[in-house]
This record gives sequence, structure tokens and C-alpha cells, in this order.
Amino acid sequence: MTLRIIAISGSLRAASPNTGLIRFAHKNLPEGMELTTVNIADIPFYNADLKEKPAAVIAFLEALKSTDGFLFATPEYNYSYAPALKNALDWASRETVSVLQGKAVALMGAAGGMGSSRAQYHLRQVLVYLDLRPLNRPEVFANAYAGTFDIDGNLTDSTIGDNVKALLIALKESILQLKK
Amino acid sequence: MTLRIIAISGSLRAASPNTGLIRFAHKNLPEGMELTTVNIADIPFYNADLKEKPAAVIAFLEALKSTDGFLFATPEYNYSYAPALKNALDWASRETVSVLQGKAVALMGAAGGMGSSRAQYHLRQVLVYLDLRPLNRPEVFANAYAGTFDIDGNLTDSTIGDNVKALLIALKESILQLKK
Amino acid sequence: MTLRIIAISGSLRAASPNTGLIRFAHKNLPEGMELTTVNIADIPFYNADLKEKPAAVIAFLEALKSTDGFLFATPEYNYSYAPALKNALDWASRETVSVLQGKAVALMGAAGGMGSSRAQYHLRQVLVYLDLRPLNRPEVFANAYAGTFDIDGNLTDSTIGDNVKALLIALKESILQLKK
Amino acid sequence: MTLRIIAISGSLRAASPNTGLIRFAHKNLPEGMELTTVNIADIPFYNADLKEKPAAVIAFLEALKSTDGFLFATPEYNYSYAPALKNALDWASRETVSVLQGKAVALMGAAGGMGSSRAQYHLRQVLVYLDLRPLNRPEVFANAYAGTFDIDGNLTDSTIGDNVKALLIALKESILQLKK
Repeated sequence: MTLRIIAISGSLRAASPNTGLIRFAHKNLPEGMELTTVNIADIPFYNADLKEKPAAVIAFLEALKSTDGFLFATPEYNYSYAPALKNALDWASRETVSVLQGKAVALMGAAGGMGSSRAQYHLRQVLVYLDLRPLNRPEVFANAYAGTFDIDGNLTDSTIGDNVKALLIALKESILQLKK
Repeated sequence: MTLRIIAISGSLRAASPNTGLIRFAHKNLPEGMELTTVNIADIPFYNADLKEKPAAVIAFLEALKSTDGFLFATPEYNYSYAPALKNALDWASRETVSVLQGKAVALMGAAGGMGSSRAQYHLRQVLVYLDLRPLNRPEVFANAYAGTFDIDGNLTDSTIGDNVKALLIALKESILQLKK
Repeated sequence: MTLRIIAISGSLRAASPNTGLIRFAHKNLPEGMELTTVNIADIPFYNADLKEKPAAVIAFLEALKSTDGFLFATPEYNYSYAPALKNALDWASRETVSVLQGKAVALMGAAGGMGSSRAQYHLRQVLVYLDLRPLNRPEVFANAYAGTFDIDGNLTDSTIGDNVKALLIALKESILQLKK
Repeated sequence: MTLRIIAISGSLRAASPNTGLIRFAHKNLPEGMELTTVNIADIPFYNADLKEKPAAVIAFLEALKSTDGFLFATPEYNYSYAPALKNALDWASRETVSVLQGKAVALMGAAGGMGSSRAQYHLRQVLVYLDLRPLNRPEVFANAYAGTFDIDGNLTDSTIGDNVKALLIALKESILQLKK
């Protein structure tokens, strides 16, 4: 059985180190895992007045249906998470049949001095309501401005790399635990 | 001298009780204050790759330039703030000459059981980085589902109304204090 | 197999509604669970200079060793948790062989308007570091000043009572899940 | 007029880097400021059942009465603040005539990787209820394990030192602003 993971980067720019963390994860997946990165750039802000779900939302929700777990990479903007990532989760939370509840989540992020930690703690509170199950450890806090990434946002730091690898292994174990 | 306030509702739907709180504030402004509600619905997600500022962002930032203070109304989605409001602040935070720093902020919100309190405490952390100056008191936590608003999102509860009025007076005093 | 739970009340006063929540839990335990309330009143503030562990700390840590899970009841003081409860956890976190890691936690609390929710979200961040596994649901937020408790701190509100019962069942399920 | 500051260290051990930060502040006070460090080690946990205030609490509250502002240094234990510091504030919050309201606060801290930032953001939420007025900037996050302090807890890092000096100047300005 292959475990399916949905990865979401909270940053929309091409050379984002957060998207780079996900690329690194993709290349370093433990055996038996499959990772799909979903694009959230075209998902509009949630608005209860919309009579029909926008196409980007439908595609996003469809991708989530068969996932076993999530991998979120969030930048930190102004001491909190990226709105694009939270907005995608807000859309997902409105489904009658939950596409989130009870699923395992691995968190990571790249940002300035605190490596997105402030953003991740805010996200963790969001996950309580969504009844998602974030790993406690390892935490991945990558400094985006300390030579940790190249100009294209590729991870070049091996300590952070090992950290991401350990996160993926822990995610796999958590999914298997939750499936029992 | 008239004190200029920019009001922003984090909710985009027409009958939003949060937008209703701002309408109520507009009708109950203390003397010497002027309130302008800015629309953030057309502001796209922040993306550092964008070569030019979108028109909606330019208009938003222009409106902020001459303001003396802010009035934010936030719904609570999944135990945190509305992405649309945070995203507008993220754009504003990128200006070389700050349009935010040192300005007074009044917070209010309407939501389920906790009246948006979880959203507001997350927002307060964002305001630390932006060097905005939120009032500590009064806090306005309106239950959106307890007959506090009519079907169009108009505030009908006089206790919350008095609370909003007290908030506006405190905002006026804070602005005058910060200008000394 | 009987599942052993350690219950801790963050409030030290005799008629505390938080201690009352624990008494209610004690009387309404699901089959196969055993609950022991530990007293933290005599545990001094953590201080790395102390050459020997105080007797109250030794007794506390001994009680924790064989537990399968935790039930915490926290009042809310000044928008955060009770220092006595956090201090006990700080002591426990210093053990070379963890008495906490990986164990299930059920959170509840009684306080003013927000029913200790602000305290509980702060506690949840503490649990991340301790690698404890708090339930997401149900959340138990009891208003301590709305006729929910009698003068001795006994729970008299059946809705909150049902909520506590559901919490205990969820705790039992979580422990069994984590043991697999 | 001399501005009076009360300094409190959340750590009780003799060689604490947090107490070291306060000693550094004491030696580098801007002109016109006077700093008194209060000892909170003997303040017992708050307990509403106590019929009389303990002597240590009375002395603590007396010291606070004539202060113009506060300087808090907090370690980070398990991703949050030191219980001893919060407990002292909890006692102070119970006074009929507030000894806290409206006063300026400067925050700093020494801890592991994140330099006490997680502790400080929790403290900031406490300050909202107490109606204290924390500075937004500068934030002082000292790594306690990176050669920043000597074995006695004395600050040896000049960057952090400059940061503390800037904090004291900002505190002075904030007090003068709030007094206008």
C-alpha cells in the first residue's frame, strides 16, 4: 500500500525556499510514500456568497479526497502564516464530508530569523479545529537568508535536509499509526 | 482637526456581521472622527514575483497613507483570522515608507461561540511586527449566531453596540495620545 | 487491562470549579479506566540550582511513571494558564527518561467568559514541546460564573457534564490508538 | 524627574542569563531612569483561599506601587514563559486599585534556539488583559547557549548588549509618551 501525501506551499513565488523544501521532500521520500504538490495560487478568497465553487477550488478538493496525510510548508509574513495556505484550508473545511479530519500533518517552513516558527504555531491552532493531527517532532525551521537555499530556492543545507528526511519518516509512521 | 480612520472588514460576503459592525461604527462615530471603509476583495495574494503592484493594491495603499488609525473587523475561520484581511496587511507591510508604523488600531469581530477572540489574538501578534498599536480595551467579541445581527448583518444587540461605541472613543483617545 | 489516568487541577483553592470538573470525571469514568488526582500545591517553582529534588516533586514524578494518559483542568488567569500546573509540567519535563512523551492528554477548564479557552491554547503549545498528544475534540470550556457549578465547585450543568463524559471516552480511544 | 522601573527575572537560579540581562540593563540605564530588581522567589502560588496576603506578596505589591514601567526578563520553559514571573503578575492583577494598568513594559529573554520568543508572545497576551503597554520594538531574543553569557550569567555579547540599550531608550520614550 502506498501512502499518499498532499504537499502545499504557502508561498506563490517561483523561487520560494518553501516550495524548495517541498521539492527536496519529493526527492527524498521514504519508500511506500507518494507525494503530490497541489497549486493553490488560483484559489480565490473564501466567500460564502459564491453560488458555485470556483474551478480551482473543485480541483483542490478533489486532490485532497484520497490523501492519507499532508505536508505544509509555510513562509512567515509579519509573524504569522501565509494567507494563501490558510485560505485553501478554509475552503477545505467547508466540505460536508470532511477531507481533512483525522489525517496526519507534517509542518515545515522557511523564513527569516525564527525560521517560520511563529507562523507554524499559529497554524497548529488552526489544525485543532480542523481535527488534523500534526506531528510534534521534528520541527523544521529553516532560515531562508543564511545560505540555506540557492537562488532558485533549492535547499543546500544538509542539516535542514536531514531534518526534512526525519520529518517524512515521522509522517509515515504517524499515518500508519492513525490507520490502525 | 479631524482624525481619519480606515476600516477593514475581513469578510467578503455582502451580509457579513463583521461588515455590519463597521457600518454600526460609521453611524456612531465620536465627533472629530472620519471613517473610510476600504474594500479588500480585489487584492490578490501577495506574491514577490509580481513586477508591478496590482491596481487594487495601489488604491488600498493610497487610502492608507493619510490615515490616523485603523478599525479592523475580523471573522474567525478555523480558530484564526480571515486570510483576506491579513493579506491586505501583508501588502501594506512591504512599503518602503511605512503606512502602518505607530498608528492606533481598534479590533473587533463577530463569529461563533468565542466571538472571534482566537482570531483577534493571532492578529495581535501580527500587529507586533507591523508596529501598530492596538488598544487593550475594550475587546469586542460579538456572537454572530445569537440574534446579535439581523439577516443583512446589521447589529441589533445594544450591549455589543455600546461596546463598539466605547471602542471608538478609546480609539480616538489613543490616536490623540500617540500624536502628542 | 485498566488504563491509568493522572488528573491535575491547575487551581489550588478548595472549592475550585476546575477541581470540580475532575471530581465529576472521577464519578463518570468509562469502564476500564482508573483516575488518580495528584496534588501539585506543594511543588515549589522549578529552580535548576536545587541540588536535590523536593519531596513533593519526587512524589509527583513517581505518580506519573505508570500513567497512560493525562486529564488537565486549568483555570484562566489573565488570559493564560495557571502557573502551578505549568510548573508541575516543567519539573516533569526535566526527567532523563521522559514520563510524558507520547502520552494522550485531555484538556478541560472552567473560567470566566471564554471558559479558559485562552489558557488551553497556550497549554497546547507547551504540549508540543513535551511531545504529549492532546485530543482535538471535544473541547471543554466551562463558564465558571454562570450557574454551572455550585458553591463548592461541583458541576451542576448537564451540557458541560455530557461534554466531560465525551472527553473521557475520546481519551480512552486515543490511549488505545496510541498503544497499538 | 526620575523614571522608576521595576525589573523582574523569571528565573530563580543564581547564574541565570535572564537575571544577567537585568544586571546589564542596570549598568546601562539611560539618564533619568532608576531600576529596582524585585525578587519573586518567595511569592507562593496564587490561591484565592489564602485569608491574608503572604509577606512576600505584600512587599512585592508595595514595590510596584510607585513604578513608572517594567522590565521583564523571561526564560522559555517548554515553549512558554516561566511560571514564577506569571504568578507574580497574577498576584498583582488582584489588587483593587491597579498597580499595573497603563504602564509601559519592556520585554527581553534568554533561552535556547528561539531566544525565548515563544515565551514572550505568550506573555504579550497576558499583558493585554493586564492593560500593560509592551513595546513592539526592539525585541530582545538572546540565545543562552551560544557564548552570549559567561558562566555566571553575565552578558558578554555586544550585539545583544546594544539591543538591550536600545530597549531601555525605547522604554524611557514610551513612559514619557504615556505620561503626556
